[in-house]
Amino acid sequence: MSSQSEKAEYFRSLHHGTHILVLPNAWDVPSARVFEEAGFPAVATSSAGLMVSLGYPDGEVMPRSEFISATKRIAHAVSVPLSADIVSGYGATTKEVEVTVKGVLRAGAIGINIEDFVHTTKRLHDVAKQVRKLRAIRTVGESMRIPLVINARTDALRFAPGDEDAKFDEAVLRATAYRDAGADCVYPMGLVDAPAMSRFVKELRSPVNVMVRKGLPPIGELERLGIARVSFGPAASYATFGLLKRAAREVLEHGTYESLVAGAIDFDELNGLAAPKE
Amino acid sequence: MSSQSEKAEYFRSLHHGTHILVLPNAWDVPSARVFEEAGFPAVATSSAGLMVSLGYPDGEVMPRSEFISATKRIAHAVSVPLSADIVSGYGATTKEVEVTVKGVLRAGAIGINIEDFVHTTKRLHDVAKQVRKLRAIRTVGESMRIPLVINARTDALRFAPGDEDAKFDEAVLRATAYRDAGADCVYPMGLVDAPAMSRFVKELRSPVNVMVRKGLPPIGELERLGIARVSFGPAASYATFGLLKRAAREVLEHGTYESLVAGAIDFDELNGLAAPKE
Repeated sequence: MSSQSEKAEYFRSLHHGTHILVLPNAWDVPSARVFEEAGFPAVATSSAGLMVSLGYPDGEVMPRSEFISATKRIAHAVSVPLSADIVSGYGATTKEVEVTVKGVLRAGAIGINIEDFVHTTKRLHDVAKQVRKLRAIRTVGESMRIPLVINARTDALRFAPGDEDAKFDEAVLRATAYRDAGADCVYPMGLVDAPAMSRFVKELRSPVNVMVRKGLPPIGELERLGIARVSFGPAASYATFGLLKRAAREVLEHGTYESLVAGAIDFDELNGLAAPKE
Repeated sequence: MSSQSEKAEYFRSLHHGTHILVLPNAWDVPSARVFEEAGFPAVATSSAGLMVSLGYPDGEVMPRSEFISATKRIAHAVSVPLSADIVSGYGATTKEVEVTVKGVLRAGAIGINIEDFVHTTKRLHDVAKQVRKLRAIRTVGESMRIPLVINARTDALRFAPGDEDAKFDEAVLRATAYRDAGADCVYPMGLVDAPAMSRFVKELRSPVNVMVRKGLPPIGELERLGIARVSFGPAASYATFGLLKRAAREVLEHGTYESLVAGAIDFDELNGLAAPKE
C-alpha cells in the first residue's frame, strides 16, 4: 500500500466493512506513531490538538503553510492512511479551499474533514456554498488522481436555529446535501445518544461519523446502530493534558511522581517514535 | 518580571532558595502552559520530548533553525523563565555552540542545559574542550546582557571508563571543572541513589540537578540530601505516550474509552492553552 491512491481507496473501504472504523486523532509525530503501532488501520489529525500543540487556537488562525507542514510531518512518519482535519478549508472562497486541499494531498494525506461553520462567529455556512466547496474538493482529488476520502462535518445540531427537532432536521438536510455532493462520510457534531444516531443513519443510508466523548455508547453498540466511523476528535489531547495536570499537582502537593512513572514508556521507545515505521 | 535579564536572575535564585527547585520539562506549547498554570516557577524543555514531537530522534539530527523555532514557540507562550536543553550545543566547535546559545537566548530562553557527550557514539567530550564551551556560553550571555543560567550535564556516570568508583570520580572531576568554568548548576546523569547524591553534593558544594525516574527518592528527601534542582527530563513525554498506548489498547480490545475520558480536560481548556498566559 505505497501509493496515495491505494491508501485513499483502502481508507474508503474501511467505511464500508463489516466492522465500524475506529479512527484515532493525533496531533504530532509520536502520537500518530503510537496509534499506528497499536494497530489502528488509519490515523487522522485533530485540528484542535495539532494547532494548540504549535501555539494556535483551533480554527484558522495558524498560517496555512505551517498547518500543511505539520500535516506533512505526520503523514511522512506513518505508513497507514492519514486523514487531515482542515477545519473549514482555510478560506472563505472555494478557490482558497482548493489550495488547502492540494496542499494537504501533496503533504501526503489521503482524506480530509471539512466543517460547515465559522469558528469565530459559530455561524453555519450557506448550504449551497458548502456544496460547491465539496464538489471542488472532489475535483481537486480527481485532478491529482487521488480518490481522497471526504468527511463532511456539519455543526447544525449545535448552531442551527430553532429547537432540537429543527436542528436535527437541518443536520439531516445538510448531511444529505453533502453526501450528494460527493462526501464519503458525514459527521454530525453533537450526535451522541443512541436513538438519534439510529434515526440519523436511517435517514442518510451512507457512512456516518461520531466522535468519542463522555457518555458515548461503547464501540460495539455504535456498530450495532450502524455508525460507520468513530473518531477520537481531540479526546487524546484532552486526556494527555489531564494527565499532565494530575502529575503536576502530585509533584507540587505531595512531592512524588507516581503519575509520571506509572505505565510510562522509556527513552528507547520514545526515541523510536521519531523514526518512520519500517 | 518582564525582561530576560530579570527572568534569568530569578531563575538563578531558585537554585539557592530554602527549597529545592522542581523543574518540569515540556515539549510543546500546551505542555509548557499546563506546567506554568499548575504553579511551577519556571519551565524547561526536554530535548528528547521536543525533538521526537517534531519527528526527530534525540540528539542533533533536527536542524538548528527548526530547534530554535520550537524553543521560541514555547518561550513566547509562557511568562515564567524557560530553560532550553541544547543537547551538546549543536556543533563540534565552540563557535557553533555560540551560534546555538545566541539563537535560544534570542528565542526567549534564559537558561540552557548542555551535555558533555556525543549522542551517536556515546563518547564523552574532552573536559578542556567542554570547559571552553562553557566559558564561551557565559561570554555570549554577557555580550547579550542576559545572565543566563548554565546547567552543565555530565554523562560520566554512564560513559566514563572504569568501574563505578572511577565513573563517580570522573563525574565529580568534570562537574567541578564545569562549575569552575561558570556553570550555575551541574547535572550528573544517572545520579539516583541517596548515598551517591549526598556524596556528590558534598564534593561539589554548589547546585546539583537530578532527573525524575522510577526509584528516585521523593522530593522531600532530595531536598534533605541537598539537591538544588530536580527536573522531569522526558518523564512527562514517557507518561503521555504510556497513556496513549493504554487508551489505544482499551479501545481496540474492549471497545471502550475510559482512559480517554477519565480525568481529561475539555475543549475550552485545551484551546486556552494556545493563548499566552495573561
